Amino acid sequence: MNTIGKLYRLTSFGESHGPALGGVIDGCPPGVRISVERIQQELDRRRPGQSVLTTSRQETDKVEILSGIFEGMTTGAPIGFLVRNTDARERDYGNLKDIFRPSHADYSWQMKYGHRDYRGGGRSSAREHVSRVVAGAIACQVLDEVGVSIRAFVSRVGNVSLDVDYRQLDLALSESNPVRCPDAAVAERMMEEIIRVRELHDSVGGVVTGVVQGVPMGLGEPVFDRFQARLAYYLMGINAAKGFEYGEGFHAATMRGSEHNDEMLPGENGPCFRTNHAGGILGGITTGEDICFRVAFKPVPTIGREQHTVDKAGHPVAFTASGRHDPCVAPRAVPVVEAMTAMLLLDALLEADSWHRFVGLKK
Amino acid sequence: MNTIGKLYRLTSFGESHGPALGGVIDGCPPGVRISVERIQQELDRRRPGQSVLTTSRQETDKVEILSGIFEGMTTGAPIGFLVRNTDARERDYGNLKDIFRPSHADYSWQMKYGHRDYRGGGRSSAREHVSRVVAGAIACQVLDEVGVSIRAFVSRVGNVSLDVDYRQLDLALSESNPVRCPDAAVAERMMEEIIRVRELHDSVGGVVTGVVQGVPMGLGEPVFDRFQARLAYYLMGINAAKGFEYGEGFHAATMRGSEHNDEMLPGENGPCFRTNHAGGILGGITTGEDICFRVAFKPVPTIGREQHTVDKAGHPVAFTASGRHDPCVAPRAVPVVEAMTAMLLLDALLEADSWHRFVGLKK
Amino acid sequence: MNTIGKLYRLTSFGESHGPALGGVIDGCPPGVRISVERIQQELDRRRPGQSVLTTSRQETDKVEILSGIFEGMTTGAPIGFLVRNTDARERDYGNLKDIFRPSHADYSWQMKYGHRDYRGGGRSSAREHVSRVVAGAIACQVLDEVGVSIRAFVSRVGNVSLDVDYRQLDLALSESNPVRCPDAAVAERMMEEIIRVRELHDSVGGVVTGVVQGVPMGLGEPVFDRFQARLAYYLMGINAAKGFEYGEGFHAATMRGSEHNDEMLPGENGPCFRTNHAGGILGGITTGEDICFRVAFKPVPTIGREQHTVDKAGHPVAFTASGRHDPCVAPRAVPVVEAMTAMLLLDALLEADSWHRFVGLKK
Amino acid sequence: MNTIGKLYRLTSFGESHGPALGGVIDGCPPGVRISVERIQQELDRRRPGQSVLTTSRQETDKVEILSGIFEGMTTGAPIGFLVRNTDARERDYGNLKDIFRPSHADYSWQMKYGHRDYRGGGRSSAREHVSRVVAGAIACQVLDEVGVSIRAFVSRVGNVSLDVDYRQLDLALSESNPVRCPDAAVAERMMEEIIRVRELHDSVGGVVTGVVQGVPMGLGEPVFDRFQARLAYYLMGINAAKGFEYGEGFHAATMRGSEHNDEMLPGENGPCFRTNHAGGILGGITTGEDICFRVAFKPVPTIGREQHTVDKAGHPVAFTASGRHDPCVAPRAVPVVEAMTAMLLLDALLEADSWHRFVGLKK
Repeated sequence: MNTIGKLYRLTSFGESHGPALGGVIDGCPPGVRISVERIQQELDRRRPGQSVLTTSRQETDKVEILSGIFEGMTTGAPIGFLVRNTDARERDYGNLKDIFRPSHADYSWQMKYGHRDYRGGGRSSAREHVSRVVAGAIACQVLDEVGVSIRAFVSRVGNVSLDVDYRQLDLALSESNPVRCPDAAVAERMMEEIIRVRELHDSVGGVVTGVVQGVPMGLGEPVFDRFQARLAYYLMGINAAKGFEYGEGFHAATMRGSEHNDEMLPGENGPCFRTNHAGGILGGITTGEDICFRVAFKPVPTIGREQHTVDKAGHPVAFTASGRHDPCVAPRAVPVVEAMTAMLLLDALLEADSWHRFVGLKK
Repeated sequence: MNTIGKLYRLTSFGESHGPALGGVIDGCPPGVRISVERIQQELDRRRPGQSVLTTSRQETDKVEILSGIFEGMTTGAPIGFLVRNTDARERDYGNLKDIFRPSHADYSWQMKYGHRDYRGGGRSSAREHVSRVVAGAIACQVLDEVGVSIRAFVSRVGNVSLDVDYRQLDLALSESNPVRCPDAAVAERMMEEIIRVRELHDSVGGVVTGVVQGVPMGLGEPVFDRFQARLAYYLMGINAAKGFEYGEGFHAATMRGSEHNDEMLPGENGPCFRTNHAGGILGGITTGEDICFRVAFKPVPTIGREQHTVDKAGHPVAFTASGRHDPCVAPRAVPVVEAMTAMLLLDALLEADSWHRFVGLKK
Repeated sequence: MNTIGKLYRLTSFGESHGPALGGVIDGCPPGVRISVERIQQELDRRRPGQSVLTTSRQETDKVEILSGIFEGMTTGAPIGFLVRNTDARERDYGNLKDIFRPSHADYSWQMKYGHRDYRGGGRSSAREHVSRVVAGAIACQVLDEVGVSIRAFVSRVGNVSLDVDYRQLDLALSESNPVRCPDAAVAERMMEEIIRVRELHDSVGGVVTGVVQGVPMGLGEPVFDRFQARLAYYLMGINAAKGFEYGEGFHAATMRGSEHNDEMLPGENGPCFRTNHAGGILGGITTGEDICFRVAFKPVPTIGREQHTVDKAGHPVAFTASGRHDPCVAPRAVPVVEAMTAMLLLDALLEADSWHRFVGLKK
Repeated sequence: MNTIGKLYRLTSFGESHGPALGGVIDGCPPGVRISVERIQQELDRRRPGQSVLTTSRQETDKVEILSGIFEGMTTGAPIGFLVRNTDARERDYGNLKDIFRPSHADYSWQMKYGHRDYRGGGRSSAREHVSRVVAGAIACQVLDEVGVSIRAFVSRVGNVSLDVDYRQLDLALSESNPVRCPDAAVAERMMEEIIRVRELHDSVGGVVTGVVQGVPMGLGEPVFDRFQARLAYYLMGINAAKGFEYGEGFHAATMRGSEHNDEMLPGENGPCFRTNHAGGILGGITTGEDICFRVAFKPVPTIGREQHTVDKAGHPVAFTASGRHDPCVAPRAVPVVEAMTAMLLLDALLEADSWHRFVGLKK
């Protein structure tokens, strides 16, 4: 449904061209100081119209907090929030009422719901990510108190790929260019690729890599709520995501055990790992090593080229999109990937902490 | 935790070397005829000791149904079941009490739980999959009534890959060889690869491909419970899974929209799709096209070579595994992938059906 | 937490003196025509300041729908909504910052949360019921299509009790007087009692009786989600509720089986019941007979008399409430009881319907 | 469904006359020492055939633990368990296949499920309580470490009532007589009443009172998961329960605020309460005072007198029960009430503890 999380939970609502998007965050611990500016900064990172690479739709994406924060601090009560839609041009989408755009949600949603808000994709629009960014930005501020940090960046746009171990990169640099790739030279080539496909009235896919540092040991709940299974669920729930992998991911399928195994050795603060092919998770539970993962995104289906499709009556029609859209979702997906990851980490942390009294007694 | 599913739910219990594994299946519709032999056949497909490629542990994996099936039919009451462990040689694992085997769950579980059943991996052992196979085999029999069929096969072992569109394969052939690859020639090379790594006292990774046919339209619940997000969750919860993709998956990241989009055209029974790059899901909801996905598995961490690790006291030790194990998990993962997929399909079907009264009235 | 329901779910947010109350309704079936005026009517029934018996706080309680309803019909997407607080006089409550009012939530919430919004009770205020009334009013409109109707009324105020079988009453008359009792003579005495306690600067408890008619057979899920267990949960979650009973309730404890049993006899449309001591539920599942239940409410703890209590520093203080409040909650609890009941009925109906495909095939 | 709890969860299975009853307990903290004998003692308290007041069915109710406890301590893995049925006389119930017994679950279950296990009530039998007693007995042992104790006793049988404040009773005495009433004189009269109704081939209702002592402050989650709402849900899910109240309960409806309010005063360890009309819960959250509640049970519907009913074909039949049954469920409901209460307390404790890191930092 429209709620995610067990103890830290977001319930999201809103459509692309309705009055507002928003949500309710439940289970946020009380007494944590929250900066609304930091939430707004994250929204600004995801906001359309922020660079030449993105849609020209103009939205201020201004968040209004309605409850749950009192005198600058969380109270433990649910945090209701709202982001009004301001640049919702219905005229752009009126012609979509009766047409199933190729590779959009139009057809499957029409079949499932019978009655749907077709304006700009309605509920299926990526504008819904706004709610997640708010919940993620709050989670991040809670995680700060525990020393957890989350960073994502674009590691592939079409055939332009950043094939470097993340430990050799300065991840903070990913914010220094519109494509959000921490390697300036590769970023340049990615931007060229995006501009090229836009000129061709086409779009292109991409990959976002995420890294979590300062992860507490012991997060994750076997056997079904393994940390990686929930991480996959959180990230594959982002619009346009087509694949997820962590640690060595699909590459692990080509490896030998003797290559892939991470040997352990004594360290100053307990055992440590010689390598981290595992990606920070063993047996579904975090080891304290960095969690590293990748999410693949398909090319945006909205392209300015004529395509064959059908209308609601089942008749064939030729369709050329004219609305505003990004040629590549990956750069704007970066803050969404971070937000989803932050929500999961806080949720798993709260769940693991529920045993503190007993685990503490016994260890 | 140890429950999966919203309306069709499995709660699993049991350890590798405890008295029994088992579970409770809740939410199975009443009045469906269930063949216990078909459940047993699925267990036999996953059972150890079934071929030269697998561990020599001998388990009959005989299922006992304790409730919920009366006069051969489901009653809607929970189905409790049990599989006793019979070949649990504790002597194989006594030496593991104090050692953290590289890339196993030993270390992370010890840190999380403090007190754990270390015998043969305990709860973290892949023997736990037995419970899933039972729940999947029952789900399959329910899905039969709706015309849904699920097939998985091994599409990669190390560097041996089956790179053919599944529509050009006879998927039934995957059961004709121990490696469960439907192309006999490729299967032969995969088997050679597995035997080779075993001789090297090593292990190797692999990929399992899944195909669902006869999928009803309209399964999946945006925005967080998109069908693909839940599918990823179900499949990434299998031991040793490192990556998940559906449709074009990671390859989609390299594609243009004009290539990736699936055009629609009029068909005899409503609109149909020219291609299925989407993998049967649009906007989180099934389209009625086949669902196609892939799961990457890491090489088994248990290898017969000396590795460096540490013991519970933090001292370095050299460790060489002597227990029984598979050199490649992929062949025995095939029935588990099918089982998890079946559970999800039934769950999503029940959820979608809950609206039948209203959707039916209005359409 | 702040979400209730399995398939029809309300997530509620907001504080008494914050900017707004509101919520998100998830799982509402698509294609159902919704009248916003009917929602507003229900809010008006619960609104403060509606009669001489209630608090003088003036709130218009105007609902704004933010999503999920398009062209007057539900779309299956979550329904976000908002009710702005307009008459939030902080000066009334500034003095409550450091005092624990007797029998209010002040003390327990301070202990649990450490940091809380103390203005007018904050999240613990009965103003939160606004969100429930909206979700209930929408559920009622969906239930209308299935022929289910829900009626509640006041059956006791202090020692004034309406001791008549509900089948001998015209339940519609309960809206004809401010105390919401369908018997005009008893209503008169209840009103006198409420006015009397108000003059004494005191408050008084009451009982609300609920009746559901047109209930489909087969709602409820044993063994834990019995219909009555969920009904108790929904209703005991209303502020000030102290007891719940259905059918004969506590009186059943004094009865013999031969008195309490409902004999069955053949009827025109299948078996029917000679009596309905059971209250419409057997073995946790609805029988199709009317569901009848009662909820006890304590006297409002806010009274205009001096009481002993302590402040946050632990010092004794004498406290006399000066804020606006009702002398008896029962009349304004009536629409809340109806709303909670409606939400549960729709939820249980959707759950029962999820099996329609299989149960339909087999019967 | 058949799972209860959020963090400490029981999933139950089994039918009265099937091979076994059992369940899976998930979320039990690791490292807690568990005595299987104490579990067995609780089962023995609920066991049939234990006194002259109960059914003569002979069941040893011997529990077998299948997982999750290793070397006498919990591991945090799910605890699977089993109780085999041994005295399941099918001949007693063969004649029930086609008859709907008055005020039993027969009719409603037949309508809902179409196909059901009719032997001895099948899943609707109170024998299912066995699973709850096991889960409760384990929860009690965990709660022992935190100093929480739970006691229930019979406070009414028909018109024989124990009308004394529980603080004036020695609750331990309730185990000294078969009716489980801590006042010996009243117990004697209750036993006489039960024997009398049995001689009349009739049955009688009763009330069980529960008291929880040593309750931590801060349990319960507003607004829907108020402690009392969940307690009502847990207890109204017991077979034959018809009503629930806590604190002053229904009596509160007759009281004035000035009587019912609990004044506070300074105490040695922080503020304390002059009275406890509230029953230990304010605003949905525990105050640290004793929690006191009552559950009403209907008379057992199985009576040895001829009653009118119908068969599956809809024809009228005269029916006289001949199976084994209790004339009053209250005495054997006592350990079930305690078990359900223990499960909830542990669940709420774990949930409250999940915030310890943040609440601890801030207070």
